[in-house]
Amino acid sequence: MPRTLNVLEIQTQTADEFVDLTAKVKAVVQQSGVTAGTVVVFCPHTTAGITVQENTDPALKEDLFEALERMVPRDRPQKHGEGNAHAHMKAAMIGSSATVLVEGGKLLLGQWQAIYFVEFDGPRRRTVQVKVMAG
Amino acid sequence: MPRTLNVLEIQTQTADEFVDLTAKVKAVVQQSGVTAGTVVVFCPHTTAGITVQENTDPALKEDLFEALERMVPRDRPQKHGEGNAHAHMKAAMIGSSATVLVEGGKLLLGQWQAIYFVEFDGPRRRTVQVKVMAG
Amino acid sequence: MPRTLNVLEIQTQTADEFVDLTAKVKAVVQQSGVTAGTVVVFCPHTTAGITVQENTDPALKEDLFEALERMVPRDRPQKHGEGNAHAHMKAAMIGSSATVLVEGGKLLLGQWQAIYFVEFDGPRRRTVQVKVMAG
Repeated sequence: MPRTLNVLEIQTQTADEFVDLTAKVKAVVQQSGVTAGTVVVFCPHTTAGITVQENTDPALKEDLFEALERMVPRDRPQKHGEGNAHAHMKAAMIGSSATVLVEGGKLLLGQWQAIYFVEFDGPRRRTVQVKVMAG
Repeated sequence: MPRTLNVLEIQTQTADEFVDLTAKVKAVVQQSGVTAGTVVVFCPHTTAGITVQENTDPALKEDLFEALERMVPRDRPQKHGEGNAHAHMKAAMIGSSATVLVEGGKLLLGQWQAIYFVEFDGPRRRTVQVKVMAG
Repeated sequence: MPRTLNVLEIQTQTADEFVDLTAKVKAVVQQSGVTAGTVVVFCPHTTAGITVQENTDPALKEDLFEALERMVPRDRPQKHGEGNAHAHMKAAMIGSSATVLVEGGKLLLGQWQAIYFVEFDGPRRRTVQVKVMAG
């Protein structure tokens, strides 16, 4: 039976990073054999998140990280012993998962959309769960 | 066979706007014939999002847009060529989709909840995907 | 037939509070008999939300509330008659639901993750919907 659950492995390179998962999520959907339903992409870490955002302009990602840093500066006093409370806050704002529709075996993403893992406390080895639900 | 996937069309009127989708999502659920499960409402655009929020007071929406604008001002210097990085950031904060439960053929929304498309870079023609999952 | 939908009841104690729902969500999944799929945790209130965040350090929660309060201060002038626009904004940032994967009858949470109800306008009696989807 084809698998509907896969775990992707990622090695982030810097403190803050967008990692485009779209091609890998498409491959999981195709291998699952599911032609209609949804796919859930879930981040099992608390200092990183998942978002669906613009797939073209690298400069936009710099703007997004700068906007997040103005809202949640990393050098604020904090009580959390590990000193990365800012990364937890940014992850909570971005969200821990994305749900995308599947139809005709394809992801129903908009023309300018990609599915991103967003690192806020790298570089680290990370995993991402991908589950295809038929329906 | 009843359809479980529908695409709604929207024309937003202003730069920032809440568009209440609740009645249209209810209609999609009813037409699907699904009596129990979930409904996923997905935004295939990267300068708009989907949220479940208060369904009554128009003044609250003004407060929410003002709070978002204080956090992410539209007139900040930015690297993104299109000049709408603020709209992408706000969309990433609000999220690209909402999942709502269905039981007895009805949306299990709270008394004060509606499902909103939130425009951050209008006016534009937009679409919203609605998928009903039985379960 | 085992139930796949359950409604949890919560009494929050303070204005801002993280309530760990993980054990209760696990129990709902086990009682459902569903061994593979997803579980959706939904908040039917508009001044509270659901997040998946760090499960160990209480001090981190203080940092998160402080960061949210700096972004969205409760004492700002506002148009909303009830005076709790800040709580609606924070709820919209955190999100109204979380989706977590289920495999082998267990929640596929990361080692440091818990599922939290996040109160922004307590103390109040609250409910949370939990739905298990097989797939």
